[in-house]
Amino acid sequence: MSKEYIPYHVPFPTHHLGLEFVKEVLLSGKTAGNQIHSLACKKILLSNFHGEQKFLTTSCTSALEFSALLASVEPGDHVILPSYTFPSTANAFLLRGATLSFVDSMPNSPNMDLDAVEELISSKTKVLCVMHYAGISLDWEKIKALKATYNLTIIEDAAQCIDAYYVNNDIDYPLGSLGDFGALSFHETKNISCGEGGLLLVNNQEYIEKAEVMYEKGTNRASFLRQESAFYEWKSIGSSYTLSEINAAILHGQLLQKSEINKMRHAIWNSYNLAFENFSVPYVPVYAKHNAHIFYLQLASTSESVEFIEYMQKKGIQTLSHYRPLHSSSFFNDKHDGRILKNAQHFSDTLVRLPIHQEVNVNRVIETALDFFN
Amino acid sequence: MSKEYIPYHVPFPTHHLGLEFVKEVLLSGKTAGNQIHSLACKKILLSNFHGEQKFLTTSCTSALEFSALLASVEPGDHVILPSYTFPSTANAFLLRGATLSFVDSMPNSPNMDLDAVEELISSKTKVLCVMHYAGISLDWEKIKALKATYNLTIIEDAAQCIDAYYVNNDIDYPLGSLGDFGALSFHETKNISCGEGGLLLVNNQEYIEKAEVMYEKGTNRASFLRQESAFYEWKSIGSSYTLSEINAAILHGQLLQKSEINKMRHAIWNSYNLAFENFSVPYVPVYAKHNAHIFYLQLASTSESVEFIEYMQKKGIQTLSHYRPLHSSSFFNDKHDGRILKNAQHFSDTLVRLPIHQEVNVNRVIETALDFFN
Repeated sequence: MSKEYIPYHVPFPTHHLGLEFVKEVLLSGKTAGNQIHSLACKKILLSNFHGEQKFLTTSCTSALEFSALLASVEPGDHVILPSYTFPSTANAFLLRGATLSFVDSMPNSPNMDLDAVEELISSKTKVLCVMHYAGISLDWEKIKALKATYNLTIIEDAAQCIDAYYVNNDIDYPLGSLGDFGALSFHETKNISCGEGGLLLVNNQEYIEKAEVMYEKGTNRASFLRQESAFYEWKSIGSSYTLSEINAAILHGQLLQKSEINKMRHAIWNSYNLAFENFSVPYVPVYAKHNAHIFYLQLASTSESVEFIEYMQKKGIQTLSHYRPLHSSSFFNDKHDGRILKNAQHFSDTLVRLPIHQEVNVNRVIETALDFFN
Repeated sequence: MSKEYIPYHVPFPTHHLGLEFVKEVLLSGKTAGNQIHSLACKKILLSNFHGEQKFLTTSCTSALEFSALLASVEPGDHVILPSYTFPSTANAFLLRGATLSFVDSMPNSPNMDLDAVEELISSKTKVLCVMHYAGISLDWEKIKALKATYNLTIIEDAAQCIDAYYVNNDIDYPLGSLGDFGALSFHETKNISCGEGGLLLVNNQEYIEKAEVMYEKGTNRASFLRQESAFYEWKSIGSSYTLSEINAAILHGQLLQKSEINKMRHAIWNSYNLAFENFSVPYVPVYAKHNAHIFYLQLASTSESVEFIEYMQKKGIQTLSHYRPLHSSSFFNDKHDGRILKNAQHFSDTLVRLPIHQEVNVNRVIETALDFFN
């Protein structure tokens, strides 16, 4: 048995492609973004996302902020979102001055409990932000019903969701493509990565023109470059969301290996799922086709999960807990309405993620973990 | 005379270093930021900026937004800024809900007229944002006096200012280090570049702790990594400003060639300055040590500047006008208070920038331009 340290994550090695593409970018002198590798990335992403307008961004955080700006979230507006998520999900709306209500996880899944949303909706509620944990889809029928009844803007935090799907009538709908907006991440820790990077999908046609201007620092540069305007000038509030062409070159290399990455990850995920069939592991509903982004075990208690992580670490295997609930953070606790969100707390206390990447010795991870429990 | 096309800008070629560094980053798997090349960049930047806290950011735009958030700009606050600048200068404050007053340029310089600031100050005025055009410093004595009298937060948009200085009593003060905050750009078009990138300097010690949290998506991750906290959690509003390690690798390569880049640019700038001594060219006050970022000619009229740009283009040389005034843009015109900002308009109409980079045939540019005027 190898004694080599197994870190929680190692990006898939696409060095050869990445370096060749970065060299091309540097030689072209066109390093700032929206050049050939950005276009190549968007072309490959057409296999995931079809009609949706795609904006490569500096991060999923910036894609979420971009969506909040597009949705015209402003002071006085109310946003409903999960507690068990990354702070960026919430900051995107706080930065626009919104008030927030956090929703608990489900008993059997870190995903938000959509049945707990309706009672939080008021006349001020503008956005329902959903986050598909571990690339495992929420129940889209429920989201659609809430949107239809309350006229909500739906923003999907699909940070973990490249190549994950919601399935209905045998049709696979990619996560990120179902809401008005979908935000994906290409951060180092994701299945497909380029250091820091993200993608905003604008799925609702009514926002596309606005998005194009906001993306270009609030100018009509895009229409100017298409020679539809004689000059370009300040047209709107906006920001600099553009992913640099250097990151796009790395992303291009990764996207070309998407099938290999998916195959490798699913093989490991499936081995874990089989080995730990008697444990509390990710619940995948029939309507969800996940992307093997995360495999976790749920331990019996906080102390057991701490012991497990320490035990695995001593054996040279890095395992990780995940989010601390946002509603009870030292920052938000006094702004929270007092509801007890016990499932979110429970996943925070007991969820431990196992490593999934090309350097993982799966049998060693499984045997070591089973040794702990025996 | 070579007939090769001379574009307005070509980044300095540091491919060999950049590719070697990017390879290191990819092999390390630590691509997300704040790793060895980010640290190396900050170390080299110590030759420019000493005590100031340095945050590498995804762009100068995001550095400006970061500074506006740090300065607690909020709805009801008033910000004074130049009209002759890039939309990001203004968007950073509009995104926080501020009201804006734009200031004219000086008759002899695109830089803002600091003597026109005082009459705009009200009890609501929180921030004076200054922008040093072409890396040519504003008069810092005047800014200091305004700050002292009206207790303003000073934000320097130093996008164009790497290696540019304000000089007082024979001491060189780097631009970006004098305000409470300074934002620099490493965009493709700048003297030193990494595709998209920026730097926020936090010069006022009272903001440093807050900045560290906001930079890490509003978490105390930095103190956690220093083992000062047992865990990290949501502590504040914040965003993802981090420059990826891949861009930092490219930036590192550029910064190692900083002296060569400066030498090359100053040689070209000085040749232009000599050749066009009878023309209206950049005015450099005694208190400014510039960085040869921009050399421009001021033409007699809008039509002459259009003719000049077309003439040069036909001769295979790209020259560019610059900003359209923000106060009279189609977006802001109806929010502007009606003051006529004639100098900003004049620079918009008549300023034309000449190419400065390692591939420029200086004599050809000079001779071609002089041919136009004769």
